[in-house]
Amino acid sequence: MVAVAILAAGRGTRMKSSLPKVLHPLGGRSLIERVLGSLTPIAPDRIFPIIGYQGDRVQEALHHHSNLEFVEQSQQLGTGHAVQQLLPYLEGYEGELLVLNGDVPLLRTSTLQQLLQTHRDRRNAATVLTAQHPTPQGYGRVFCDRRNVFEQIVEDRDCTTAQKQNPRINAGIYCFDWPKLAQILPKLKANNDQGEYYITDAVNYLNPVTVVDVEDYQEIFGVNDRKQLAIAYDILQTRLKDEAMASGVTLVDPHSITLDDTIVLEPDTIIEPNSHIRGTSVIQSGSRIGPGSLIENSHIGENVTVLYSVVSDSIVAADSRIGPYAHLRGQAEIGQGCRIGNFVEIKQSRVGDNTNVAHLAYLGNATLGEKVNIGAGTITANYDGVNKHPTRIGKGTKTGSNSVLVAPVTLGEDVTVAAGSVVTQDVPDDSLVVARSRQVVRPGWRMTPKTNPET
Amino acid sequence: MVAVAILAAGRGTRMKSSLPKVLHPLGGRSLIERVLGSLTPIAPDRIFPIIGYQGDRVQEALHHHSNLEFVEQSQQLGTGHAVQQLLPYLEGYEGELLVLNGDVPLLRTSTLQQLLQTHRDRRNAATVLTAQHPTPQGYGRVFCDRRNVFEQIVEDRDCTTAQKQNPRINAGIYCFDWPKLAQILPKLKANNDQGEYYITDAVNYLNPVTVVDVEDYQEIFGVNDRKQLAIAYDILQTRLKDEAMASGVTLVDPHSITLDDTIVLEPDTIIEPNSHIRGTSVIQSGSRIGPGSLIENSHIGENVTVLYSVVSDSIVAADSRIGPYAHLRGQAEIGQGCRIGNFVEIKQSRVGDNTNVAHLAYLGNATLGEKVNIGAGTITANYDGVNKHPTRIGKGTKTGSNSVLVAPVTLGEDVTVAAGSVVTQDVPDDSLVVARSRQVVRPGWRMTPKTNPET
Amino acid sequence: MVAVAILAAGRGTRMKSSLPKVLHPLGGRSLIERVLGSLTPIAPDRIFPIIGYQGDRVQEALHHHSNLEFVEQSQQLGTGHAVQQLLPYLEGYEGELLVLNGDVPLLRTSTLQQLLQTHRDRRNAATVLTAQHPTPQGYGRVFCDRRNVFEQIVEDRDCTTAQKQNPRINAGIYCFDWPKLAQILPKLKANNDQGEYYITDAVNYLNPVTVVDVEDYQEIFGVNDRKQLAIAYDILQTRLKDEAMASGVTLVDPHSITLDDTIVLEPDTIIEPNSHIRGTSVIQSGSRIGPGSLIENSHIGENVTVLYSVVSDSIVAADSRIGPYAHLRGQAEIGQGCRIGNFVEIKQSRVGDNTNVAHLAYLGNATLGEKVNIGAGTITANYDGVNKHPTRIGKGTKTGSNSVLVAPVTLGEDVTVAAGSVVTQDVPDDSLVVARSRQVVRPGWRMTPKTNPET
Repeated sequence: MVAVAILAAGRGTRMKSSLPKVLHPLGGRSLIERVLGSLTPIAPDRIFPIIGYQGDRVQEALHHHSNLEFVEQSQQLGTGHAVQQLLPYLEGYEGELLVLNGDVPLLRTSTLQQLLQTHRDRRNAATVLTAQHPTPQGYGRVFCDRRNVFEQIVEDRDCTTAQKQNPRINAGIYCFDWPKLAQILPKLKANNDQGEYYITDAVNYLNPVTVVDVEDYQEIFGVNDRKQLAIAYDILQTRLKDEAMASGVTLVDPHSITLDDTIVLEPDTIIEPNSHIRGTSVIQSGSRIGPGSLIENSHIGENVTVLYSVVSDSIVAADSRIGPYAHLRGQAEIGQGCRIGNFVEIKQSRVGDNTNVAHLAYLGNATLGEKVNIGAGTITANYDGVNKHPTRIGKGTKTGSNSVLVAPVTLGEDVTVAAGSVVTQDVPDDSLVVARSRQVVRPGWRMTPKTNPET
Repeated sequence: MVAVAILAAGRGTRMKSSLPKVLHPLGGRSLIERVLGSLTPIAPDRIFPIIGYQGDRVQEALHHHSNLEFVEQSQQLGTGHAVQQLLPYLEGYEGELLVLNGDVPLLRTSTLQQLLQTHRDRRNAATVLTAQHPTPQGYGRVFCDRRNVFEQIVEDRDCTTAQKQNPRINAGIYCFDWPKLAQILPKLKANNDQGEYYITDAVNYLNPVTVVDVEDYQEIFGVNDRKQLAIAYDILQTRLKDEAMASGVTLVDPHSITLDDTIVLEPDTIIEPNSHIRGTSVIQSGSRIGPGSLIENSHIGENVTVLYSVVSDSIVAADSRIGPYAHLRGQAEIGQGCRIGNFVEIKQSRVGDNTNVAHLAYLGNATLGEKVNIGAGTITANYDGVNKHPTRIGKGTKTGSNSVLVAPVTLGEDVTVAAGSVVTQDVPDDSLVVARSRQVVRPGWRMTPKTNPET
Repeated sequence: MVAVAILAAGRGTRMKSSLPKVLHPLGGRSLIERVLGSLTPIAPDRIFPIIGYQGDRVQEALHHHSNLEFVEQSQQLGTGHAVQQLLPYLEGYEGELLVLNGDVPLLRTSTLQQLLQTHRDRRNAATVLTAQHPTPQGYGRVFCDRRNVFEQIVEDRDCTTAQKQNPRINAGIYCFDWPKLAQILPKLKANNDQGEYYITDAVNYLNPVTVVDVEDYQEIFGVNDRKQLAIAYDILQTRLKDEAMASGVTLVDPHSITLDDTIVLEPDTIIEPNSHIRGTSVIQSGSRIGPGSLIENSHIGENVTVLYSVVSDSIVAADSRIGPYAHLRGQAEIGQGCRIGNFVEIKQSRVGDNTNVAHLAYLGNATLGEKVNIGAGTITANYDGVNKHPTRIGKGTKTGSNSVLVAPVTLGEDVTVAAGSVVTQDVPDDSLVVARSRQVVRPGWRMTPKTNPET
């Protein structure tokens, strides 16, 4: 039985934000969502976000997490006070309580599992997560014996010169035996300069207590201002890029690339500079993304190139070439071996295999067959000002330059649309459709500003 | 009374440039303009740029600074020689002389103020700006007593091993009592290897002299080659980004972003990677810029998004969405709640609130009302080869795909322009305007290369 | 007489790739091509890539190097075993053998020349390339006397604490007197944990042997995984950027720029952030590239600006302005003083001097004279579905917005094409060509979804 408290009541004044600190995004997810994410494999029985400043907004932002029990901490009187708020909720509970911080977003699940495991193996009353920190200045130091039995926490300002040499710091992450903690909590005193109740005081009262060192000290990095948010992002990016490279992905100039931790990059993909892969995106082997591309929540098949383009919520099948300056969005589905070229937007459309949309085109709510050739400047007029209408284009059909297909409309197979035509009615297979005027030439004509030739 | 000499006569050979060194740009302003900028709050009575190499070009580049008295140093015989050139200009002057370097662009006004203040408080003949430098190798070391009374400057090559341990270096920035300096200047000797007159010699002759340590040693960084120009840019960027983050701006992947020091970023703006904010730009709260956007001299209202776009000399009101791949320029003014989409250029035009220009359009010299919908491929033909003409589009009007509005032309309110139409004459309110041919279909037609169907 | 062995038989398991390690690209060229490139000025008499894993693929990738003699090492039994494979090839050969590694891509030619020169001057049996490494941990240490006479190589794991202090490491690069080496090679033993034959054993048997320290220890960096590939790229980028800046190029925010070592940047060019210059590109003085531009295999003349654009395999003459969001490709040739604006693609076309193609246009297989003005939305319909056809546009001609030029077609000089026209036949000089319908207005018309006005 594991219950979890997530301290998330603070305002985060140094963020200088109207948004509560724990809701600030870090690589696609808010700080507190990252903490919740690290808990998923542990499947706690109960999770208590302890909220205060703009608690409604935190609650609202997390409303899709159905298993949360929000606990109000109306005044922020310290970590001990925060955990005290759980007393009415956990009456009679016999299991462990993990205490996490909503602004410590980089903790790995494996670290929490190790904390829990040690807590159980050692039959502890409390287990303290610690870190061997290369620059421990400013942090509270944790002292223990050689068997990792906890002795004391000394705040940095109270450390002797000798104590300051101790690189082991308190991560502020704890596992408690709830029945034992519950006995201590009401006895905490706020007899310190800040007038706050500290959870570390509870640790001092409990027994036995041991500590667990986190493997990677960067996991316990906390975010208190925007610079720390940037540093946390940097730690996360280094972690994700190292993982990607270790798994066989080439990152060209890695520090100019950003990745989300929710993406999948298959081996032998190449990510070029200034590219950003986000959300649930998957990039399959042999594909080359960038330079200058943004892929969001999209599936890119094998051996695809995406050059200077934006692809959102879309699918591109194998061997297609996208860009430069293409924009796929809103469930666009591009078939195999397609070429989607410059200044082309495709929205909520299906494009068949080996079809080309090479230049200056807009396809919306359209379904294209195989081997279609969409001429430069072709536009599906899918919007009548009120509704969106579909366009269907059969296989092998070719549209001329600057043609307009006024939806709803269907072009059959092997149709040819002459350049500059506006197609308003359905066209059967194997037809030529023309909708334009013949060319008239006025020779000996010289343009003057007064005789504006309506160019 | 403060006069200022700015040493700007050198060629800057290591820049390998046809441009005089002090005119090289650093984050939107030249090196010497940055020095001038740091002086503005001090409001010196007289400012003497001491010019030599390509002096005309320096003078020309600074012609908009009305208060400068350019002093020619035809031969470059050292810093002392440069200051000697002021003797005829400052005859009878009784105040202070600040001596600055045109290639030291990062000095803060507060540092100069502190230098001046110390100079006055201590009633000095000269005050020397110094820095405690983490890597003082190569710089002249400044020695003084514990009350900061100047004792001597020793060049790095002349330092004993003990002297080399002194981290206090000479910044090359001085404040002098002019009458006292003026007495010394004619006596300077060039009896050294370089045959140059050094201003440091004058310091040795004066009394009392004290030193002032700059708070941030990076302020005194001097630029002698392109790599140092890049390092200065890096120092400047770090400074600007730290300030932005401290004030409540989220920079996602800060090292991929560049900022000018002339911009304003309100709290709770988010700047995404590969974005560059320049000139007089203002970004209001709640807006998200980037990835991949360039904002120059533009005002972006609240809660605007600008994705992969270029916005120059333009205004975007609140709640509008720009991009990807939009280009606003030449005093474009976009109203509230607009959507300016991909492959859209808007130049010198006003766009009313809640108007959409979603794809592949060009608006130039146009005025659009509210709730207009500009169809994909709509173009204002504003140029007759000689002049630009205006287009006016009333509120609620909709243009069809690939339509052309030949300016000068006015479309009333709630007009509908059919797809593919070329509008050459004004259109009254509540009209449908059509200018195109009906569709002709030739069934059973098969394209062959010989019968080119004019696609 | 110099022969060269390049060890290239390994699989490179840690690359996690289907591609053999030495074929992985690094800044535009594969690792092994870089090694071959460093040899070009040395002009070896014979070059033996020693291949194994996917040897066919290595051979295929290098097929354009006519002078290579590929040697199969079917089993990978160590460096000594690799060199043993040369015995049948070099029977009777009396010269030197350089032993290089296919995965050490940053070695400079000057280093190899110095290795060879020392080998000859000292009349060595073998000469060992070494490096004074700031972090030698993990590398084999090389010990020698004060005259650089080789004494022994000790693997890191076998080093005493004192030996570990030696910063001189073995680079794995050797020059041998082949006749002497050939005598030793058959005697090598594989009596070690790995059961491999080491070339270092041969060094131990030979006499005299001296070492040469590489000037820049980063040259000997080897690539075994994707992270090391990224580090090698970083070393290369720093080298190239330092060279560019030293030669008078301004790099704004250098770490956001990437360069190939095959490009030429003239002094007084400015490269803005997020720009990438690749292949055989040349950028002439006074030009400004970026932000956000990719230039590949292209020649950019003097005083050109290229803003947020992609230029591949093309030429831009002096004083032209490209972008933002332009795409030049396939041998586009842009004349002097042109303006190629946003959302313009130009492919395999020649554009005369002072011609404007300012917005939303596609020119393919076209030849434009001087002072042409291509209206927004103008498209050359160059493709009939089977072949590409040419378009010719005479000087001073202006095309109206959204016009289509159906190729093959020739427009004379000073022709004006009315907006929205589709031009299918040749047009003589000084003509106005119109191909569109007159405007019809239906007043009092109100759009409803049911009466879709075909917008």
